[in-house]
Amino acid sequence: MITSSSNAKVKFVRRLQADRRFRNQEKQYVVEGTRWLRELVAMARLPELLFYTERWLETAVHAHILQQLNSLGQFTALPVSEVVMQAMSDTSTPPGILAVLPMQPRPLPPTPTLLLVLDAINTPGNLGTMLRTAGAAGVDGVLLGPNCVDLYNPKVVRGSMGAHLRLPIHSQTWAEIAATVQGLQVWVATVEADRVYTAVNWTQPSAIIIGSEAAGAGDEARQVATHPVTIPMHSQTESLNAAVAAGVLLFEAARQRRIA
Amino acid sequence: MITSSSNAKVKFVRRLQADRRFRNQEKQYVVEGTRWLRELVAMARLPELLFYTERWLETAVHAHILQQLNSLGQFTALPVSEVVMQAMSDTSTPPGILAVLPMQPRPLPPTPTLLLVLDAINTPGNLGTMLRTAGAAGVDGVLLGPNCVDLYNPKVVRGSMGAHLRLPIHSQTWAEIAATVQGLQVWVATVEADRVYTAVNWTQPSAIIIGSEAAGAGDEARQVATHPVTIPMHSQTESLNAAVAAGVLLFEAARQRRIA
Repeated sequence: MITSSSNAKVKFVRRLQADRRFRNQEKQYVVEGTRWLRELVAMARLPELLFYTERWLETAVHAHILQQLNSLGQFTALPVSEVVMQAMSDTSTPPGILAVLPMQPRPLPPTPTLLLVLDAINTPGNLGTMLRTAGAAGVDGVLLGPNCVDLYNPKVVRGSMGAHLRLPIHSQTWAEIAATVQGLQVWVATVEADRVYTAVNWTQPSAIIIGSEAAGAGDEARQVATHPVTIPMHSQTESLNAAVAAGVLLFEAARQRRIA
Repeated sequence: MITSSSNAKVKFVRRLQADRRFRNQEKQYVVEGTRWLRELVAMARLPELLFYTERWLETAVHAHILQQLNSLGQFTALPVSEVVMQAMSDTSTPPGILAVLPMQPRPLPPTPTLLLVLDAINTPGNLGTMLRTAGAAGVDGVLLGPNCVDLYNPKVVRGSMGAHLRLPIHSQTWAEIAATVQGLQVWVATVEADRVYTAVNWTQPSAIIIGSEAAGAGDEARQVATHPVTIPMHSQTESLNAAVAAGVLLFEAARQRRIA
């Protein structure tokens, strides 16, 4: 059992948690919680490294999930003390299971019919919630513009509830995004627009661009968009959290596609 | 100018920020940011006390809003040093304006047609976002069950973006909630249900009960509900943040009411 926080592997994990450049250099990131293990099993993917506490392993269902993952292939799984787990964890109450995963974004489908494009989303919790929401609504992929918070930030990972594994998510320049969304109708969510989101035909292949709450979508995002679209509010002083706005738009698209 | 954090009024504000029981005893709470001053002017309501930094007042539009509020009636407005503002603020970068408001919930309309009912929402940020979303969707009021986080918690207030002033929001027991929603169709959001939310006739007078993400709605909430309703997800492993779920349901109700 690893009991020292100066163990080389423990230091490696801590650096991955704290340092975006190191994550990009190593092309690895950290996930925590039993839910991520279930996702790995479901997606038939293996971690680079896995750490667990004895207390975590005592729960029969946890041991069973670990066994399922082991049956998929070889990887290094190491027991660690509670203190070491706390040192590696990004949370104040660690779930007791932590894994290092390779950055292996799923490829976008060749002809996507619904994409979410995010511009300058700076709040990690908000980005995580948006990825989770996008997955639940059934998008084909998510594109992150250059000014978004790092996709592999620990708080983004925590909020995504596994979307990093299930969804194609790609960080792109605006030129790359323009090429990816070619042939789609591209809507940008704005506070004011002639077109109300419920009057859009979302059964057409579409992309939705959502900007930050503070500033809305930027100039480059607006240039990629073909039309502005708005969510009508009860009064002018009202506004929506960016993740809630994403949910309202994406689930309207899902509603129209179910009844089409 | 108040320059000492041991000033009695400063200590009073700090206790209001930190202590739920003290807030309930004094029937007052704290708001921060220029946006709240605009809301006060719009609602023709006065603070009990107001604190500002000289830097805040230097911006012409801020001085103008303060003048508008002054023209509505008398209240005590006190300049404070940056250090004192930081001591009173719940944020790491205080906006420079802070007010103490009386707890004066707006009364519910006699025959509400759309209510949001919240059960055991424990995360302050989530509750704040739900109140903001409910206001934007045009609900007639929000009922908080007994196990929700305090409505006047500083993080709830920060997230609500003024909904505390604009919306009737009432903390009630389940017996009181049952009486309030009498005559409405009462839907409870669940992970699995026969009825999909888009197949509900939301033009009928309705209430929507939303529980915590971890546990869903509790037994008492389910007894008040007449029907379960669900948001279909792309796959079974997916789920939605409680505030996003509230947004999707409330804006479907708003959509149906717009076209009805």
